[in-house]
Amino acid sequence: MIRLLLVHDDNLVRCALASLLAVHEDFGVTTVSWAELTGGPAQAAHGEAGLWLLDVACPGSAGLAEAVARRRTEGAESAGLIVLAPAGRPGLLHRAFEARAQGYVSKDAPPERLIEAIRRVADGGRYVDEGLAYDFLSASRMPLTPRELSVLSLAADGAPVPEIARSLWLAEGTVRNYLAAVIRKTGARNRVDAIRIARTGGWV
Amino acid sequence: MIRLLLVHDDNLVRCALASLLAVHEDFGVTTVSWAELTGGPAQAAHGEAGLWLLDVACPGSAGLAEAVARRRTEGAESAGLIVLAPAGRPGLLHRAFEARAQGYVSKDAPPERLIEAIRRVADGGRYVDEGLAYDFLSASRMPLTPRELSVLSLAADGAPVPEIARSLWLAEGTVRNYLAAVIRKTGARNRVDAIRIARTGGWV
Repeated sequence: MIRLLLVHDDNLVRCALASLLAVHEDFGVTTVSWAELTGGPAQAAHGEAGLWLLDVACPGSAGLAEAVARRRTEGAESAGLIVLAPAGRPGLLHRAFEARAQGYVSKDAPPERLIEAIRRVADGGRYVDEGLAYDFLSASRMPLTPRELSVLSLAADGAPVPEIARSLWLAEGTVRNYLAAVIRKTGARNRVDAIRIARTGGWV
Repeated sequence: MIRLLLVHDDNLVRCALASLLAVHEDFGVTTVSWAELTGGPAQAAHGEAGLWLLDVACPGSAGLAEAVARRRTEGAESAGLIVLAPAGRPGLLHRAFEARAQGYVSKDAPPERLIEAIRRVADGGRYVDEGLAYDFLSASRMPLTPRELSVLSLAADGAPVPEIARSLWLAEGTVRNYLAAVIRKTGARNRVDAIRIARTGGWV
C-alpha cells in the first residue's frame, strides 16, 4: 500500500486528482489544502503518508519550505516528495529541488507519468518528467543572486525603495543598484517588466 | 446524455476532472486545452458539446472571448457555459459574465456542487456557487474604468509610458494621469503595487 498525501489549494482539483489515483488499488490517498498543511496543527495523516504529492503552482505553495521542515520534525523524514509543476516556471522547480523533492511531474503530462513517478519514488528512486527538462536547464542558468531575488520579491509586493532598504538593512542607493542589476541581467525594459519576467518564471 | 467539453491548460488536471465526472453515466466528456480551443482549427467536438466547462484561472483563458465567439459561429449558440474560478479573483468572474456564462463554480467547491451546476445549466437554468458570491459583489464595485484597465494592463506587461501612449493613441501626460488615477482608486502605494492588486484580483 502506498500512502499518499495530496496537497492542492482547490478542493475540486484535489478531489479530481484523488479520483484519478483511486483506480489504483494499492494507493491510499488523503488530501489537504496548503493552508491545512502549513497553517493548521499537524495531523496524523501528514506523518503517516509515505509520499507527499504537492502542486507547487498553487499560491499556497509559498509554504513549501515550512511544510517540509514540519515533515522532518514529525519524524516523516523518509517520506518521498513529488511535485506537480507547470512547464515554463523554472523558479518553482528550483524551490522544490531546494526542498529535496525526488519526483518532478509536469501538470501537462499524461496521468501515466504521474503513476510512474509515484511508483518510482515509493521504491526510493527519482523521477524527472521529460516535459520539465528544459526548465531544469533554465533554472541552472538563473542569472540573479539570492539577494537580488529578495530585493525584487519585495518590490513585486509593491514595497517602495525606502521600505525595501529598511526590511533588508540596506542603504537606499544599494537597493536601487540591485534593482538596476536585475533589470540589466533579465533584459527587462524597466522595473515592472523585470518583476513580470521573474514572476512568469516562478522566481518571485 | 449531457455532452461536456472540458477546457483546461494542463492535461493532468483535465484528465483528473474528467475522471471525477466519468462516474456519472449520463455525462459524455471531451477534453481540450485552451490552445486547442482558441488556436487550432474548429473541431466537431467543440460544436457537438451541449455544455462547455471552462477553467478561467488558466493563463490560456485569456482567449475566452475568442472561444465563445467561435462557438457562436459554429452554430453552438445554445450550448451552456459553466466556468470554474478560484475565489478572490473577481476580474475572472467579470470576464466570464461578459461571455454570458450561465454557471459559476468555485474551484474550492465540493464536487457535488459542480455536478449540480452541470445539471442545472443543462436544463437551461443558471447556477452561482455561494463560494463566489462575495467576488460577484466585489466585481460590481470595481472602481476602474475600461480605459484605466487597458492602460494598467499594458503597464503590467512592462510597457513604458511612451509605448502605452502610442498603443492607445493617447498623450504621454494622459497615460500618466490614468496611472495616477489607478493608484489613487486602488489605494496602492505605487505603480507596481497597483499592478499587483489588479493582477491578484484577476483584472489584468
